[in-house]
Amino acid sequence: MVELHGDERIDYLLAEENLRIIQSNSVFAFSLDAVLLAKFTYVPIKRGNILDLCTGNGVIPFFLSNRSRASITGVELQERLYDMALRNTKLNDLEDQIQFIHGDLKEMPKTLGNGKFDLVTCNPPYFPTPKEDYKNENEHLAIARHEIYCTLEDVVWSCSRLTKSGGKVSMVHRPGRLPDLITLFRKYQVEPKRIQLVYPKPGKEANMVLIEGTRDGKPDLKVLPPLYIYQENGLYSDEMRHLLYGN
Amino acid sequence: MVELHGDERIDYLLAEENLRIIQSNSVFAFSLDAVLLAKFTYVPIKRGNILDLCTGNGVIPFFLSNRSRASITGVELQERLYDMALRNTKLNDLEDQIQFIHGDLKEMPKTLGNGKFDLVTCNPPYFPTPKEDYKNENEHLAIARHEIYCTLEDVVWSCSRLTKSGGKVSMVHRPGRLPDLITLFRKYQVEPKRIQLVYPKPGKEANMVLIEGTRDGKPDLKVLPPLYIYQENGLYSDEMRHLLYGN
Repeated sequence: MVELHGDERIDYLLAEENLRIIQSNSVFAFSLDAVLLAKFTYVPIKRGNILDLCTGNGVIPFFLSNRSRASITGVELQERLYDMALRNTKLNDLEDQIQFIHGDLKEMPKTLGNGKFDLVTCNPPYFPTPKEDYKNENEHLAIARHEIYCTLEDVVWSCSRLTKSGGKVSMVHRPGRLPDLITLFRKYQVEPKRIQLVYPKPGKEANMVLIEGTRDGKPDLKVLPPLYIYQENGLYSDEMRHLLYGN
Repeated sequence: MVELHGDERIDYLLAEENLRIIQSNSVFAFSLDAVLLAKFTYVPIKRGNILDLCTGNGVIPFFLSNRSRASITGVELQERLYDMALRNTKLNDLEDQIQFIHGDLKEMPKTLGNGKFDLVTCNPPYFPTPKEDYKNENEHLAIARHEIYCTLEDVVWSCSRLTKSGGKVSMVHRPGRLPDLITLFRKYQVEPKRIQLVYPKPGKEANMVLIEGTRDGKPDLKVLPPLYIYQENGLYSDEMRHLLYGN
């Protein structure tokens, strides 16, 4: 058994029947964004190395372990979340496939070496907001949500350095940042190759964008069919129901 | 009456009951892309100046005249198409609102002056293909479709120079060029503000992208609901039927 601290709970990932994950509303609970990124991204299936930056409690590595036999490393800056990720590894008996590093993503190219990974994923902090806007949030949540310890440019720079030539970088973000994502990807030699827009329901503007690029790739972007979270009637769309509940 | 040359015909624009347009399969016939751009773009309603580059037979100015009372200028490099556009103006009795210039879009900032337009639209040549790929097309169609006389960078540069600060630039292109569009818009101080992806039908990849930016605008992109051309059953979607047939 693993220990639970404070308001932590163990959640079952319904569609991923073998996985359980420790989380906490006051520290870190993974979001739909992470689930969709783990579903969207390319993965090397049989071997190779995957890195997940801003990994939080490790949710993306755990999801990816159901799609890939590659070695998966997660990097988390916050010790409290890193500790949760370690306990999640033990809880799911995945110590052989998944490891976590407690550290700053900006240091990872130096620590891990350039061009070592077949895939680098990241669900980064979304908000480049001034300090007043997060002073009412607790520190753990503020760091995970706001560009306090890393900017989007830091994230893309690190992803690029860590990915091997021909390897993939996959991220999820708000559509408002799509121009930044595309210009930064190109600035750091990651050519955007696949985009998928996520819409809360038909007729609404997109509220999430998934993007994957290839290190040193040739220009040729594909825009996948849109993904809707809910149907008009307020129920989950068929795709989402399948993703979340497996039926 | 206006004269028709060669295989030219007069088409009625069904949803725009007042408009008729001369076109020809061997020289220039407008496409759905132009219809969608004319529908998508912002327009100044009551007054102002609109410019349409790569105007062909003038289809976009004619569509826009049904949405705006602004003065509209079209620019076309090919004399044969420019002549068609002039006859279309006469045919539709729109000489008071619409004028055409026979010239090269790259010369227009010098000819027309910088920052003069509230809106610049363009449905540019799509294909940056090598010469062999268009040698079997006739010259008129090849010039309209391929980056022979202007590159995408020329187009964006001209649009930017011609648009006033706070004015809009609207274009339609293939999704494969979205990263180029976004990086070129930003290179020339046009901030991408609205994007809409067009899909041939549900479940397919996008085959068209509409993009609008603001000269000297602040970053804040919105991604509009997707537009489908056909339904699953092969009939036009409700939106397209309304656009094309007005019902």
